[in-house]
Amino acid sequence: QSGAPKGRCFCAGKGVNMVLPRKIEKVEIIPPSPSCEKQEIVVTVKNGSEQKCLNPESKFTQNYIRKLLEKRIQ
Amino acid sequence: QSGAPKGRCFCAGKGVNMVLPRKIEKVEIIPPSPSCEKQEIVVTVKNGSEQKCLNPESKFTQNYIRKLLEKRIQ
Repeated sequence: QSGAPKGRCFCAGKGVNMVLPRKIEKVEIIPPSPSCEKQEIVVTVKNGSEQKCLNPESKFTQNYIRKLLEKRIQ
Repeated sequence: QSGAPKGRCFCAGKGVNMVLPRKIEKVEIIPPSPSCEKQEIVVTVKNGSEQKCLNPESKFTQNYIRKLLEKRIQ
């Protein structure tokens, strides 16, 4: 089963491909480690502090984080 | 006082310009919000779960996060 969680990964599977940017409170990037061999991206959603796994390979994820870096200070 | 923390920012000032990548357990990107008008990048360091603010404008930060995105799965 590729994509299945291994060890102590936080995310099961790949996660969602997108989240509404204005609902994003925080983005966590967790590099691969001995406890989870895949990179994980976890988003905290506003109001309710729900956490969602974001697919690191989706176009949305790649573009959203790149734009965050470019804007820096809004 | 530019660069001073405003409202409920987590980081005071700009933060450090770099952290040893192998010591990084997690990177949190917090977009600007009503409670803190600047973007903040907080790194959790391995062993001790110390948290450090990373300067979003430093070359290290920009390159490190870009590389994370490109590698995705190591």
